[in-house]
Amino acid sequence: MVSSPTFATRMERVPASFLDTLFAVSQDPEIISFAGGLPSSVLIDVPGLRKAAQDVLGEEGCTALQYTTTDGYLPLREFVAHRYRTRLGVPAEAGMIQILNGSQQCLDLIAKIFINPGDRIGIERPGYLGAFEAFSLYEPVFVPVRLDADGPDISSFSRMLDEAPVRFFYGVPNSQNPSGCTYSDGKRREIARILEGTGTILYEDDAFGELFFDNRPRAPVKKYLPDQTVMSGSFSKIVAPGLRIGWMFAPREILTRFNVAKQAADLHTNLLSQMILSRYLTSTNLDEHLRKITRAYRANCSLMCDLLDDLFPEGITHTRPEGGMFLTATLPSGIDSMDVFRRGITKKVAVMPGAPFYTDGGGGDLIRLNFSNTDEEKIREGMFRLARVISDQQ
Amino acid sequence: MVSSPTFATRMERVPASFLDTLFAVSQDPEIISFAGGLPSSVLIDVPGLRKAAQDVLGEEGCTALQYTTTDGYLPLREFVAHRYRTRLGVPAEAGMIQILNGSQQCLDLIAKIFINPGDRIGIERPGYLGAFEAFSLYEPVFVPVRLDADGPDISSFSRMLDEAPVRFFYGVPNSQNPSGCTYSDGKRREIARILEGTGTILYEDDAFGELFFDNRPRAPVKKYLPDQTVMSGSFSKIVAPGLRIGWMFAPREILTRFNVAKQAADLHTNLLSQMILSRYLTSTNLDEHLRKITRAYRANCSLMCDLLDDLFPEGITHTRPEGGMFLTATLPSGIDSMDVFRRGITKKVAVMPGAPFYTDGGGGDLIRLNFSNTDEEKIREGMFRLARVISDQQ
Repeated sequence: MVSSPTFATRMERVPASFLDTLFAVSQDPEIISFAGGLPSSVLIDVPGLRKAAQDVLGEEGCTALQYTTTDGYLPLREFVAHRYRTRLGVPAEAGMIQILNGSQQCLDLIAKIFINPGDRIGIERPGYLGAFEAFSLYEPVFVPVRLDADGPDISSFSRMLDEAPVRFFYGVPNSQNPSGCTYSDGKRREIARILEGTGTILYEDDAFGELFFDNRPRAPVKKYLPDQTVMSGSFSKIVAPGLRIGWMFAPREILTRFNVAKQAADLHTNLLSQMILSRYLTSTNLDEHLRKITRAYRANCSLMCDLLDDLFPEGITHTRPEGGMFLTATLPSGIDSMDVFRRGITKKVAVMPGAPFYTDGGGGDLIRLNFSNTDEEKIREGMFRLARVISDQQ
Repeated sequence: MVSSPTFATRMERVPASFLDTLFAVSQDPEIISFAGGLPSSVLIDVPGLRKAAQDVLGEEGCTALQYTTTDGYLPLREFVAHRYRTRLGVPAEAGMIQILNGSQQCLDLIAKIFINPGDRIGIERPGYLGAFEAFSLYEPVFVPVRLDADGPDISSFSRMLDEAPVRFFYGVPNSQNPSGCTYSDGKRREIARILEGTGTILYEDDAFGELFFDNRPRAPVKKYLPDQTVMSGSFSKIVAPGLRIGWMFAPREILTRFNVAKQAADLHTNLLSQMILSRYLTSTNLDEHLRKITRAYRANCSLMCDLLDDLFPEGITHTRPEGGMFLTATLPSGIDSMDVFRRGITKKVAVMPGAPFYTDGGGGDLIRLNFSNTDEEKIREGMFRLARVISDQQ
C-alpha cells in the first residue's frame, strides 16, 4: 500500500488491552495465574451440554442451523424472564429480553445506541476494563465515581449528576469486577432515588449475581428503578463461556433501538448455541449446579483471603467478596502493581495490575486476583510465590 | 420513566429494515416467498454437523466451552487461508484471518474502524441493504456507483474518487446481492488499477464466491490489489447460517485494529461453533457438497429466468446470474415495486421491493427474487401468482 490506511478517530481512544495478553499468560503451564477472568473449566457440565447438543441436532437440526430473528430464541428468552420473576421478583417477559453474544456485546451496543462523542458516562472507580474498552470506541467522557466496599460513594455519585448531564451510569452491583464488592441494599435504593426522573439511564451489569457464596439473591437496582434501568446478564459464568450467550433486559423503548443495533452488528446470535443452552437448562437443575460452583469459589476465595492475611507483609489490605470470581488487594505503600505484575511473571505467578481499571490514572497500588479458575494447591503455591515477590520489593 | 431516553444521533440514520419483516413473511406457510435471503434448508448437512458436534464435545468439550482468544480458532483460520491459496491463488496465512459472527459482523467492524461521521463511502447502486444498515450507524455519506451487468460503471467509479476522498469502496463482485451480477475480470483489473496508490480501501464482500453454477472460481479483486483490499467471507451459505461464522482476510495493519474492535464488540466468536465447523470441514468433501448446492440453485435460477421470459408481460427484464442466490427483475414502466410487494402478499407470493437497495431513492421499478430456499413446484406456482399480480397492475 502506498499510503498507510487512515483509521477513524475513535480508534485512537481505545485503552491498551490486557485481555489477550492475560489469555496468553494463562497458556503457559508453569505460570500460576490469578490474572485472568475465566470461570472454572472443571465445573462446566460437558456431558450435559453434549447430550443437549445431540438432542437439538437430532431433532431440530435444520432449524438450529438456519437463520433466525434478531431478538433470539424464544424459549431461552422465556427462561431468562421466568428466572427474573421467580428469583428476583422483577416483572419480566420474554419480549423484554434480547439475546446477545455474551454480555460484552451489551457493552458495545448500549454504547452504540446512547453515546455521542463527548457525552458523559458514569463509571465505577475502579471499574471493569472490558466496559472501558467497549465504551471508548464511542468517544465518551468518563466520569469515575469512587467505589467503596458497599457500593458507590453517594456524594461522588450525586456530584457526577450535578455537574452536567450523564447519558448513563454503568455499574456492577453484585461481586464487582475487579473489586469483588457488592452494593448494599441501602446504596441500591439510594442510587435509584437519585437517578429517578433524571435523563440518566442505569446500566446494571449483573454478570455475577448468580455466584453469591450464600446462594441468596440480592434485589437488583432495577427493582427500585424499573423503567430507567437496562440490565445485562450472561450464561458465561453459570453454564459455559464458549457458547457466547448473554442477554439484555430493558424497557421496550430502549429494546427497539437496541434490536436495530444488534441486527446491524451481526443479524442474530448463534442459534445452535441458543438451542443447546435452552435444552440444557430444561434438563438440568441449574440451582444445584450453581451450588457446586459457589461452593468451590467460596472455598478458593476464603483460602486466598486467609493467605493474604497470614503470608503477606504488613500494610497489604484486601476486599472480602460475598461472591463472584475476583478480589482486589491494596499493596503496601511504595510498591507498584505493574512491578508486581512484571516480577510476578518471572517468578511464575501472574496477577492483574490495577491501572487498566482506572480511566483517570490510579491503580498503581492495586492488584486483582481471580479465584475461580484455580484450585487449593495452586492457590497455596501461587500465593506463596506472590508473597515473596511483594516482600522482596519492600 | 419521566423523560424519554435520548439516543445517540447515529440512531436517526438507520434505514428502515426489511430483514425481520421478511423473516416473518417466510414463517407464513401459505406465502411462497422469494423475498428472503436464506440458503436452502434441505441442503444443510445436519448429520455431518451432528457428528462433528458429538466428536468435539466428546473429545475437547472443556476447551470448546471455555473462553478463547479474539482472533479465532487456529485450525479454522488455517482452513480458510489454505482455501484462498489453493482455490484462488491468493497468498494467505492464518495470521491474516479474523473469525467473525458471519460476514455481517465484518460490515459493522470495518465501518467502526474506518468511518468518521461525514466520511465518503463508495457503494454499488443497487447495493446490499445489510451493509447500508451497518454502515449507516457510523454516519458516512454514501456515494453510489452504478452497477452494470459486468460490474461498476467505470466512469462513475472514477468520478467517485475524483470528487473528494473516499474511505473505502464496498462491493460484492461475485453474484451480487441484490442483482446477481458478477464483475468481469476486465472490470476487476480496472478497479484495482484505479484504486492502487490511493488512500481508498477496497472492501470486497465475497459471500457468494463459492456458489458459481459452473463451480469455477473467479479471481478476486484482492489478487490485483492485495495490500489495499479487505475481503470477507462466510460459511453461512456454504455450510450453515445458524453457526454464525464468517471471517475477514486483510493486511496485518488493518487486522490489528480490527482485532481491537472485535474484542470490544464481543471478545470472540462462539468457540463451540468454530470447533464443530472446523472438524466438519476436515471430515467432509466440501467441493462435493458445494456441487450439490450449486446444482440445485442453478436449476432453480434457470427455471425462474425461463418463467420470467415466458409468463410475464412484455417490458419486464431481468439479470442472468452465474451463481449466488438472487436475481433482480426490472418492471414494465408504470408499475411500482412496493405495489407489487404489497399486492403480492395478498396473493400469497412475496418479493423484495427494490427501494431498500438504494440510498438515494430509486428501486421503484426493481424487485429482487431469491431462488435458493425454494423448489421447482414453489417456483412454478409462485411465479405464476407473481405474473398475475404484475399483469393485473398494467
